[in-house]
Amino acid sequence: MIDKKHIEAFSKIVRPENIKSEKAHLIAYSYDATRTKFQPDAVIFPRNEDDISQVLKYCNTHKIVIVPRGYGSGFTGGALPANGGIVLSLDRHMDQLLEIDMENMLGIVQPGLVNLDFQKAVEKVGLFYPPDPASEAFSTLGGNVAENAGGMRAAKYGITKDYVVALRAVLPSGEIIVAGKKTIKDVAGFNIAGILTGSEGALAVITEITLKLIPKPKYKKTYMGIFPNVENAMNAVFKSLSTGANPVAMEFLDALVIKAVREKFNIDLPEKAGAILIGDVDGNMRDELDTQIDILKKSFKENGSIDFTVAQNDDESAKLWFARKNASPAVTIYGTKKLNEDISVPRSKLPVALAGIYKIGEKYGFNVPCFGHSGDGNIHVNVMVPDKDNEQQMHDGHKAIEEIFQYVVDLGGTLSGEHGIGTAKAPFMDIAFTNSEMELFRSIKKAFDPNNILNPGKMGL
Amino acid sequence: MIDKKHIEAFSKIVRPENIKSEKAHLIAYSYDATRTKFQPDAVIFPRNEDDISQVLKYCNTHKIVIVPRGYGSGFTGGALPANGGIVLSLDRHMDQLLEIDMENMLGIVQPGLVNLDFQKAVEKVGLFYPPDPASEAFSTLGGNVAENAGGMRAAKYGITKDYVVALRAVLPSGEIIVAGKKTIKDVAGFNIAGILTGSEGALAVITEITLKLIPKPKYKKTYMGIFPNVENAMNAVFKSLSTGANPVAMEFLDALVIKAVREKFNIDLPEKAGAILIGDVDGNMRDELDTQIDILKKSFKENGSIDFTVAQNDDESAKLWFARKNASPAVTIYGTKKLNEDISVPRSKLPVALAGIYKIGEKYGFNVPCFGHSGDGNIHVNVMVPDKDNEQQMHDGHKAIEEIFQYVVDLGGTLSGEHGIGTAKAPFMDIAFTNSEMELFRSIKKAFDPNNILNPGKMGL
Repeated sequence: MIDKKHIEAFSKIVRPENIKSEKAHLIAYSYDATRTKFQPDAVIFPRNEDDISQVLKYCNTHKIVIVPRGYGSGFTGGALPANGGIVLSLDRHMDQLLEIDMENMLGIVQPGLVNLDFQKAVEKVGLFYPPDPASEAFSTLGGNVAENAGGMRAAKYGITKDYVVALRAVLPSGEIIVAGKKTIKDVAGFNIAGILTGSEGALAVITEITLKLIPKPKYKKTYMGIFPNVENAMNAVFKSLSTGANPVAMEFLDALVIKAVREKFNIDLPEKAGAILIGDVDGNMRDELDTQIDILKKSFKENGSIDFTVAQNDDESAKLWFARKNASPAVTIYGTKKLNEDISVPRSKLPVALAGIYKIGEKYGFNVPCFGHSGDGNIHVNVMVPDKDNEQQMHDGHKAIEEIFQYVVDLGGTLSGEHGIGTAKAPFMDIAFTNSEMELFRSIKKAFDPNNILNPGKMGL
Repeated sequence: MIDKKHIEAFSKIVRPENIKSEKAHLIAYSYDATRTKFQPDAVIFPRNEDDISQVLKYCNTHKIVIVPRGYGSGFTGGALPANGGIVLSLDRHMDQLLEIDMENMLGIVQPGLVNLDFQKAVEKVGLFYPPDPASEAFSTLGGNVAENAGGMRAAKYGITKDYVVALRAVLPSGEIIVAGKKTIKDVAGFNIAGILTGSEGALAVITEITLKLIPKPKYKKTYMGIFPNVENAMNAVFKSLSTGANPVAMEFLDALVIKAVREKFNIDLPEKAGAILIGDVDGNMRDELDTQIDILKKSFKENGSIDFTVAQNDDESAKLWFARKNASPAVTIYGTKKLNEDISVPRSKLPVALAGIYKIGEKYGFNVPCFGHSGDGNIHVNVMVPDKDNEQQMHDGHKAIEEIFQYVVDLGGTLSGEHGIGTAKAPFMDIAFTNSEMELFRSIKKAFDPNNILNPGKMGL
């Protein structure tokens, strides 16, 4: 429990109505999408950057742990107070869209702004913000930057880090820093915005984000390829992309996912489908879209597709996308506990990666439905534990996950394509990193946060 | 001077033929494109990563300064031994193209490989490496990464950092680290590759680079817009780009540059030209190029262009490009000393930035011909000192440069768009950064290099 005098000091900084330490609040702020629970000692809602600076300075002086948080939609516990302390919640006051700079095609936002609200605002003026994590409707841009969030459109448009032009942030000391300008190019000093992106709130608290925007593409079309099995589909992914296909997204569903969606939502999907690839193509000229569709169709066929559909209107597009968008809830038919990971491999390794993952699932007797962003090699692997109250099953589930990580890293892949490490994957860091690399992470953490007050214990640090 | 016993120790590591300490060698390795001179105590040519690891470990133990170097084409002294010590030259042995991974569209190279050699190799197999610094024919990819090099194609395709997928590097301790994989997405651990890119060889020695490649666009066309003055041209830059123009390059020449090229090379440029914008558009469909050309032509006209030309073949294209490609040698007609800087501003600030820069030039009585990468806000500003042997003139030249930096930073711009800071711009760091920011840079430097042996003194650190 935190000393009362600290609560009083924080009250003076942010005003009493912006600090909560009643039980109900503490419980509400002890969860994220991992559904693990770490209760904070208090929750602070800073009104502005100056509040954050003063709060951090106070925490640093008194060695009080503090954990920045957006809407808590993360999958790895990045925003959870794993070591107690204060939760610094940026959703209440610091959620403004500060500027859409049309002339320089930039958006300037506060960290608490929700991704989709930003997307909608910039699209209204003909611009486009591509990063679209599945949580876009309820995840904040600050969280997106802290976790370097991906999304479906990453295949063509890249991920959050590709759009971060500049950041304002508060160091644990309370000092405010500016990293980057409204310029496309800037090579003065170390790339601080680069290392803050994806740093899981462990280096500084981001207070303002300048994001690159692009003109909104005029046209979009949805395609779906049906394959007899996963191997064919995975070959089609990297072979089509390395021969000129450039779709916005190339998403994947395996046979178990297809079956689950069919059963759970009673929808019509081809009987023979052993795997599906679905996505959009876009562009500013209709011809461009047709060319892209032709390239995909041809390349899919060469790699064994048995059917290829193109939506003719928005309704048809929504129908094609339905299975992919409902994959996550559908797979719950296979078990009461879903251990889901978001491994990423070089695209050419997708066929062998998935074959190996299924084999590990079989060994332990689990269904492992897989879906996700095959276009960039990032797959959501779901180890489905039939009975979460069965200790042996849960133990085996975690062992299977560990084996999958080891297998993926051996293939040249990574523990996380877009969810981050947080607390959930921290135990697996030594699979992916050497002692020297972990030591370097620790040194960097210390350079920013010598007293280790800011979101400690994440990433295994 | 370095102790003989150290030379002997290095000889044992790299073999005697790969260490040089004779005067001729020391002089040869004491320059870069800045033409300032800092003589090393010895030059080491490591054969491989293991050599580098052993050499660094030895240097770290004995606190010997060491400075990594490619071909020494930098404009800010990044590769110069400003504090003496060893030059670690990566050009002799570590210059191999290790792999072109067609399936994942990646190139893996050693740091000493020359940029253009890499471009040519990947283009042979239908791929494309966009970053094209003006030094492409003689600058190494290691140097490009260390300085986060830009180039003409940055307007559409971005800069070096946008293509760095993974790095291998040796820390000053001698430890070898891997940062990133052959995956598009990787959010495990801090973004080490991100901070090493642009770190000017002050954090680690890069030993292997994995670069993203894209399919080579099929078609290319060159355009040129003629404007009555700089203000019209600069308005055309940001207004065309924010309304759908997406050229590969949008390069700029001002009236002084145009005059200089005309006089020096006796070529035909429109009499009335007060500013020129030139560039290419590219794509995989001819229609796409025509549309792009139409957008540019229309937008340029709306912003006051007096002529617009499109090259009909390669010869015409080369003719249009001649003036831009020879801008740098041409401006020497204005003085015996060129103080050239590469400021970068938000594109919408280009008109006011240039107006202010000319005013500062006038105040001191210097011609300040400007040209460069207007498409990304990055302009090469050349303060031409008539007589380099005139102390007062040189003094005034440096004062003008300082005023220009201050003015640019006040406009929201940066000291360097692509050349880096090195020693040349180190005195101006306090214009652009607060004490807290400089302190953070120092902490990061220390996290990687606690004994300050690796390229010390650069960036004002």
